[in-house]
Amino acid sequence: MNNFTYCNAVELVFGRNTHREIGAHITRACPGVKKIMVVYGGGSAVKSGVLPAVVQSCEQAGLAVAAKGGVRPNPGVEFVRECIDFARSEQVELILAVGGGSVIDTAKATAMGVPYEGDVWDFFCGKAQPQAALPVCTVLTIPAAGSEQSIRVVITNGSVKAGAGVGLLRPRVSVINPELFFTLPQRQVSAGVIDMMSHILERYFTNTTGVDFTSSEAEAALRVIMRNGLKLMERIDDYDAWAEVGLAGSFAHNGFFGLGHEEDWACHGIEHALSGWDDSIIHGEGLAVVIPAWMSYVWPANPGRFVRFAREVFGIAADQDEETTIKLAIAKFTAFLQQMNLPTKLSQLTEREVPIREIAQAAAGAGKLGHFKPLDVADVEAILTHAR
Amino acid sequence: MNNFTYCNAVELVFGRNTHREIGAHITRACPGVKKIMVVYGGGSAVKSGVLPAVVQSCEQAGLAVAAKGGVRPNPGVEFVRECIDFARSEQVELILAVGGGSVIDTAKATAMGVPYEGDVWDFFCGKAQPQAALPVCTVLTIPAAGSEQSIRVVITNGSVKAGAGVGLLRPRVSVINPELFFTLPQRQVSAGVIDMMSHILERYFTNTTGVDFTSSEAEAALRVIMRNGLKLMERIDDYDAWAEVGLAGSFAHNGFFGLGHEEDWACHGIEHALSGWDDSIIHGEGLAVVIPAWMSYVWPANPGRFVRFAREVFGIAADQDEETTIKLAIAKFTAFLQQMNLPTKLSQLTEREVPIREIAQAAAGAGKLGHFKPLDVADVEAILTHAR
Repeated sequence: MNNFTYCNAVELVFGRNTHREIGAHITRACPGVKKIMVVYGGGSAVKSGVLPAVVQSCEQAGLAVAAKGGVRPNPGVEFVRECIDFARSEQVELILAVGGGSVIDTAKATAMGVPYEGDVWDFFCGKAQPQAALPVCTVLTIPAAGSEQSIRVVITNGSVKAGAGVGLLRPRVSVINPELFFTLPQRQVSAGVIDMMSHILERYFTNTTGVDFTSSEAEAALRVIMRNGLKLMERIDDYDAWAEVGLAGSFAHNGFFGLGHEEDWACHGIEHALSGWDDSIIHGEGLAVVIPAWMSYVWPANPGRFVRFAREVFGIAADQDEETTIKLAIAKFTAFLQQMNLPTKLSQLTEREVPIREIAQAAAGAGKLGHFKPLDVADVEAILTHAR
Repeated sequence: MNNFTYCNAVELVFGRNTHREIGAHITRACPGVKKIMVVYGGGSAVKSGVLPAVVQSCEQAGLAVAAKGGVRPNPGVEFVRECIDFARSEQVELILAVGGGSVIDTAKATAMGVPYEGDVWDFFCGKAQPQAALPVCTVLTIPAAGSEQSIRVVITNGSVKAGAGVGLLRPRVSVINPELFFTLPQRQVSAGVIDMMSHILERYFTNTTGVDFTSSEAEAALRVIMRNGLKLMERIDDYDAWAEVGLAGSFAHNGFFGLGHEEDWACHGIEHALSGWDDSIIHGEGLAVVIPAWMSYVWPANPGRFVRFAREVFGIAADQDEETTIKLAIAKFTAFLQQMNLPTKLSQLTEREVPIREIAQAAAGAGKLGHFKPLDVADVEAILTHAR
């Protein structure tokens, strides 16, 4: 096991009606804060009544609220700059995100941009490291990205989708009320399920120092998400299924499943190149196409790891040869994605002809991608060709 | 799933040599602190070189150190009062525990006693709730109690062993270096393994609202602790096995495995009455006797929960009747304890005649014990009689 340092100081507030209590949680967790900025996306947060309830809760707790809507999926740096200007002119002391990963990431980028003299993109192109940030709190309305517990933030600039990660971006309070997920479109449910699974898988396969604890915890979480994800295909207002998916998906990206070993992130790198090329691609759907192709290409780098995956996640008996076992696991994983109505081929993802060479260049042109099998441009081309 | 609020803000520093870095972690996590009190147990921390290395690390980080040794197993309130006086006269601002659960609990009790005007026992007999506490940090030398991540503290007063729990007792920084466990006596290894398993089991069986995520994560952790605990019986200096046991055992008591459902703690209540009666009883050994007897007595209250335990923790196929499956699981659990050289009967625990009625009265006389099956005095008597 590798040495590590880990602190997950998010205050998680979980359950029915909890979004109505956010104001009191903010004033307790961040004493002294008087004015906050609420960031949200489209009109659904307003129409559903979630945003008004959140604002009311904050005002009842004595907080002044400045609201800024309009975050779009794959949020762009221009909008973040607008939010930073807004936050400065309103002199807010805390950013509260009401939404999913895109809204939370916009809040995080704003939070680190406000106290910084330069341009916020500096943090994403490696020019600067954030030294300070406003505190961020969240009310989750789409479980998928895990951003409500993570230190990560991803922003798009033109066709470049880039991430940053630093402890001071970890939200102080995150509210998860599974009831808020009942009205999500089915496509977003499925994309969310594979997104959270991918956060575990990006950590699971590189657990090559053989940390049994994080392996076993990760396998258990994958099984729980799959079991309950399928329940949501039957009934979108199944509270308990949403509670399982929401809880597991939130822990999926807080670092727990990566303790003591390396992480990979090649599939995310490839998907970011895909949705950077065409921002109508939904991140989770892109992952559903990339991950099975990645698995089929990279498993020979460490067959033992994939045999364990086959046995522990899919209950495949190891009474056949290694390759058969592994291919059966990949087939079962792909079949699960199909049951979730997810695309598993590029041709199902987009009607446009995917410029494979260009995507591969964007993903791995600047250096090798991932750790399970470090991928160069030719490797990514092969994976995307397999995904056709 | 029940609503819950959860925040585990410990900074966990894990791995080889990490105890030599504690000073820098303290000054970063608790800026402004200038003088600390180091609490430890017997001479082994000095002889092994751990204490001098820790003190040196703190002094190099610019911290003044006042050291207080002499904590004994099942630490008593008199010694805690002594520590509080010492901390006040030395005007320390933080308590650093170097040891196992007894040392950490002494540190926690001292930390909440220092700013309190009344007697520290008030917090354990229900007379007062702590409103403030000095920050606590830990360097773990015995993995077992999970106190390095937990909000709990247990102290003995005469024959009464009582606990308290409050968020402000959660350590700020906890260092776990598995190398420090290589010199533990075998008896302490085994007692530690069942102690950490018990922290999961006390949460696992009461998961009756059926939270799949915490059930599955708990089962995975139990399997990991059992697999690696047995490895330690073969080789006490197996770093990786210790890393697994140390990591799983530390998460066992931080609240993670109890998310979304009730907890039990009946076995701890009975064991505390036992080691309150005879403080030569090692907590883990007492648990090894109590838990199988508790299982045999309570399972009819929710057989489905025990069938899941049988299937997921011991891989027992559910192709036989419920009772046979459950009894087989309890037999396998007991066999594991025996492989760990633990006592599983009162007669193996102590040569003295155990006053069963008196112990049962101490455990459940003040009100029913536990939640899986709330136990009265007669129930506890029956369990202890079964454990003879």
